[in-house]
Amino acid sequence: MKIEQLGETGLIERIVEKFRVNVNKQIVTVGAGEDDCAIMDIGKAEAGHKYFIVTTDMLQESTHFPSGISPFQIGWSAVAVNLSDIAAMGAHPFAFTIAMGIPAHTETAFVDEVVEGIEKCASAYNTLVVGGDITRSKELILTGTCFGFADNPVRRTGAEVGDLICVTGSLGNAALGMNLSLKVPQRVDEVAKKALFQPVPRIQEGIILADSGLVTSMIDISDGLALSLAELAKSSGVGFEIYKDEVPVLSDGIRNAEGFDLSKLGFDLRELAFYYGGDYELLFTMDIKRVRKDEDLLKRIKKEVKMSIIGKVVSSGEGIYFKTEGGKKKEMMEMRGYRHF
Amino acid sequence: MKIEQLGETGLIERIVEKFRVNVNKQIVTVGAGEDDCAIMDIGKAEAGHKYFIVTTDMLQESTHFPSGISPFQIGWSAVAVNLSDIAAMGAHPFAFTIAMGIPAHTETAFVDEVVEGIEKCASAYNTLVVGGDITRSKELILTGTCFGFADNPVRRTGAEVGDLICVTGSLGNAALGMNLSLKVPQRVDEVAKKALFQPVPRIQEGIILADSGLVTSMIDISDGLALSLAELAKSSGVGFEIYKDEVPVLSDGIRNAEGFDLSKLGFDLRELAFYYGGDYELLFTMDIKRVRKDEDLLKRIKKEVKMSIIGKVVSSGEGIYFKTEGGKKKEMMEMRGYRHF
Repeated sequence: MKIEQLGETGLIERIVEKFRVNVNKQIVTVGAGEDDCAIMDIGKAEAGHKYFIVTTDMLQESTHFPSGISPFQIGWSAVAVNLSDIAAMGAHPFAFTIAMGIPAHTETAFVDEVVEGIEKCASAYNTLVVGGDITRSKELILTGTCFGFADNPVRRTGAEVGDLICVTGSLGNAALGMNLSLKVPQRVDEVAKKALFQPVPRIQEGIILADSGLVTSMIDISDGLALSLAELAKSSGVGFEIYKDEVPVLSDGIRNAEGFDLSKLGFDLRELAFYYGGDYELLFTMDIKRVRKDEDLLKRIKKEVKMSIIGKVVSSGEGIYFKTEGGKKKEMMEMRGYRHF
Repeated sequence: MKIEQLGETGLIERIVEKFRVNVNKQIVTVGAGEDDCAIMDIGKAEAGHKYFIVTTDMLQESTHFPSGISPFQIGWSAVAVNLSDIAAMGAHPFAFTIAMGIPAHTETAFVDEVVEGIEKCASAYNTLVVGGDITRSKELILTGTCFGFADNPVRRTGAEVGDLICVTGSLGNAALGMNLSLKVPQRVDEVAKKALFQPVPRIQEGIILADSGLVTSMIDISDGLALSLAELAKSSGVGFEIYKDEVPVLSDGIRNAEGFDLSKLGFDLRELAFYYGGDYELLFTMDIKRVRKDEDLLKRIKKEVKMSIIGKVVSSGEGIYFKTEGGKKKEMMEMRGYRHF
């Protein structure tokens, strides 16, 4: 059945039913589809936190959905990209609204799966879907808005000369999923495609890092490491020295896959980390003095957060560069990556 | 200059500059374009209110923007339709985020005017634009999300048999602006077009009505009075008896315009109120017992809120009908109006 046959009211009822199930009635007095607005008990929602955190992201079929993505993964992504921004502040996500533009000829089953993806990603990160909107559109468009709370939100502005530059997880996995021209074993292709189609927001990592008190600035990597480094450097008014070989490229699952020989790819793997997007890892700086003062703390963090130190903060005049040949030469980083215009 | 020449970073900087100006630094620690998320001091923002209110609305060029609307009015509308939902709860709006999908060939001057409209509507209702997103899209798309606070949010569910049914302002003005086939004086056309292109959210009216304690249910009228009556009746589990002649059709400014003869239009004006959308007035019910107990209170409200009593709540079994010929006959109301699918 097409959604135009179902009609607006039928479609809304079908969707909100999915979102109502998991809503925490203690906090959400009125949820999705129940009234003109959602109503939440602010005292119960904030749970003592000082700051209210908001972000919004619009995804569109023609720009954002890579070929081969499933409807479930489209819905998942619409939540995940917003959660990733919440993670970059080290905040606790709490509620989410979703506005959907849907072409009239769309199959109801397709919408059901998108909604399932939205619900699953939100509930995986303790986030309640409290409201939304549906309109008819030329292409599929999903605008998510996510709310969270934090006591010590981490800005992009706090990096200082001498700080360590770090990233969570590994980079380039989603990029490998985009590069169909590279011949890789089927298992590797599956893992890379999943990284691209169903990104994992680093919510827990962001909270641990923010709570540690060691982190001086943070941003999520959505359009490649190079652009995120540039953004963080600009916001903090600093430069970055990057240890190219320390940048974690591709997950262990991919690197160790049977039949996968990195050296035979004929492609500079670091390209994938620096100049392609879609990874949604966190890029952050750590106060070197505080790290030295309590080295056990960093060890404890490393047990909970998979992370790599990839460079150090230098003065803004030095720009962003790779240290090569035993530190004797500087190679300035190219500034390219995914841009919307 | 086209926005594709300006580039993503240039475009964002240009836009956030407009939104930063009026941001209340006491409340908004981090505003639009400054970081991954906006950060607000929740204690200062909520100002003692108990409930957090959220709504989101997506507007698209092909569906929502009537022919002749200016870029300023497009921006204004994207905020106004969200504020109207906040008004329908009787809540105080506080902050707003805007996600924009913009075709690459759009002129920068066009975007500037849209942004101006967003800023002007938000600031007219004490609402801070705290964040947003920009992506490239096939057609212009604006998703607004609005946050507010309330102590006694008015639901759609509280209407009881015997309650008075009321509307704010007058209806059919926007509808007259849509009906180009009706010949009206230029001045009337201008007023009607403004009602259609630049809707006025009834924020102050909503707050006064909610604070009065007399209002038992409320909804905003966006797709015509008939559909809003149906929605309110369904939510409250009641029926409505409507006094057709009491429904305020067209504003005084239009009715009294020189050279405008309603009787010569050859068109049932009530059609405009019941079956066309775009008015964004509030439809609400009032507790008849409480009104009778304190008639001065209703008088005081009427001094501040332009409103009309258009019917009374009956049991759900009676449905929604017009009382005609001195109350002897029932004429069931047709259920039609603007629908998205």
